[in-house]
Amino acid sequence: MNIEHQEQIQKVLIALKGMTVKNFFFVGCGGSKAALGPGDYFVDREVGLPSKVYTSNEFIHLSPKTLDENSVVITRSHSGTTPETVEATKFARSKGALTIAISMDMASPLCQEAEYVIHYNYKDGSDASDGDTGMYWALIFNIINTLSPNEKFDRVLSQLSNLEKLLDVNKKSTYDTAYDFGKRNKREKLIYTMASGAYFDQAYSFTSCLLMEMLWIHSNAIHSGEYFHGPFEMTDYDVPFLMIVGEGASRPLDERALNFAQKFSDKVEVVDVQSLDYLNMDADLREYFGPAIIGAVLRQYADGLAEHTGHPLSVRRYMWKMDY
Amino acid sequence: MNIEHQEQIQKVLIALKGMTVKNFFFVGCGGSKAALGPGDYFVDREVGLPSKVYTSNEFIHLSPKTLDENSVVITRSHSGTTPETVEATKFARSKGALTIAISMDMASPLCQEAEYVIHYNYKDGSDASDGDTGMYWALIFNIINTLSPNEKFDRVLSQLSNLEKLLDVNKKSTYDTAYDFGKRNKREKLIYTMASGAYFDQAYSFTSCLLMEMLWIHSNAIHSGEYFHGPFEMTDYDVPFLMIVGEGASRPLDERALNFAQKFSDKVEVVDVQSLDYLNMDADLREYFGPAIIGAVLRQYADGLAEHTGHPLSVRRYMWKMDY
Repeated sequence: MNIEHQEQIQKVLIALKGMTVKNFFFVGCGGSKAALGPGDYFVDREVGLPSKVYTSNEFIHLSPKTLDENSVVITRSHSGTTPETVEATKFARSKGALTIAISMDMASPLCQEAEYVIHYNYKDGSDASDGDTGMYWALIFNIINTLSPNEKFDRVLSQLSNLEKLLDVNKKSTYDTAYDFGKRNKREKLIYTMASGAYFDQAYSFTSCLLMEMLWIHSNAIHSGEYFHGPFEMTDYDVPFLMIVGEGASRPLDERALNFAQKFSDKVEVVDVQSLDYLNMDADLREYFGPAIIGAVLRQYADGLAEHTGHPLSVRRYMWKMDY
Repeated sequence: MNIEHQEQIQKVLIALKGMTVKNFFFVGCGGSKAALGPGDYFVDREVGLPSKVYTSNEFIHLSPKTLDENSVVITRSHSGTTPETVEATKFARSKGALTIAISMDMASPLCQEAEYVIHYNYKDGSDASDGDTGMYWALIFNIINTLSPNEKFDRVLSQLSNLEKLLDVNKKSTYDTAYDFGKRNKREKLIYTMASGAYFDQAYSFTSCLLMEMLWIHSNAIHSGEYFHGPFEMTDYDVPFLMIVGEGASRPLDERALNFAQKFSDKVEVVDVQSLDYLNMDADLREYFGPAIIGAVLRQYADGLAEHTGHPLSVRRYMWKMDY
């Protein structure tokens, strides 16, 4: 991680040590909201403080009563220009909360509204530890380790220097399967996704941003624990599912859903996070790295669909083309 | 409300007064999880205490670190037999939390695992204040009024005696529209739903339980605030949306999404909660009653689809027919 980025994280940690943190709010829209999800999950699981995720405009209109000067509000927008998220940051700051904004653009309106800023590099050829996932993981696990210290999190943080390699090796090993998925599913008008735990937001992101927004394929991100309480009745031999079978506490939920879906659908694609290459990482750290690796792997499944449908991921009919 | 039901709520309130409540957990599966949603929303908005909703099995496997003897865990299952929810109640109690179970069957495993029980009547011809919504609203607003007293909540509680009339008059006034919706949409293979705020869970429930489980129609419950961050790219002249335009803080989110959807889809059905008949209720109470009324109204939209597709809501291909 470069020095500027290290300093940004240090500033946040000093601020946290200077306050009594009462709760966490993770606030963003669409893919940025989903990208925040693992932070909420790990705070919930590892720190004895409440945490919740909101889509930005809901956060403002709901106006949670526990939001005050003891709150930490983490907002995120890739460009830093998402109006609802800029407004949510302003709103949180007006309530006295500690605001931390994450973006690739330090000069963006989002970064100007927030008290603290976490910048990440984007497609500039630099190491993955300075990229979006690397910087977010560094922020989250530094926060967790400050509030709820554990040598395990020291090891998580030191493993972040391996992120580039972890992404590379797993992108390579899943490339052919991902492109073949695109070939087999190129005529599908609808593909369900499914996941749970720290991976649910990966399914949500794949559904909302990759399938619906970029590929114009109908979808719904189903929580593996909710599958049997309604959605599983849609399962049939010709209904496709992209299932993330996680590495971590909620894996049994995914396995149970997978076991059922495979019985009644001929089109279940499994992305098994446990079968990724963790490069000899300590076994107890894998649950923290699975969600860091899988986004880049899943992206290739979308690339495969784009390739075989002839529908580039950059095409939009409404976004950026009109006011809304 | 009958005396037995009143006593159940009083017991909960006495227990709450005898402890320091630190946080709330709402835990259930599918439609029961969704039915708990408004409780989470109103606690978040009206009480200065954190609150979160979990699907039962995720709650157990995630094992939130803030769950302890100062927690209130509200679980719900219509039959009281949902295994994951029974287990979640047991788990919460083992952590020392105050457990409150909601069910129509006092003799059910769920009610036996919980320390406190809220029973509701089901299709027995009794007044709606003793039914599922009436009892849940009574529980939630009594809890809110105990922890964060406000004369407004006294009025909410006294208005609950009008719930039967409110449901009747609004079911009647929307009946024809709902059946016509069924007629116009009987050939649809996919219908999106959309809502926000206290109504989002109504959309979720309609999507998961009514469309997917009971009618085998593909769906996804889109949060109005998330619509513009991915899902709106699926909007097209022939893509149907069932939109709940709420009454309350998040209405502007719904109006913005509606305005866009109507421009590009010829199949947008609007269920406008503001246009319901509130029987001269004080204007400042409407936001608390909209979510109590709309479930029964929406049910008629599913009845309309069942009528015109010839697919009864009672049909299942997997549920109750096999082990899973």
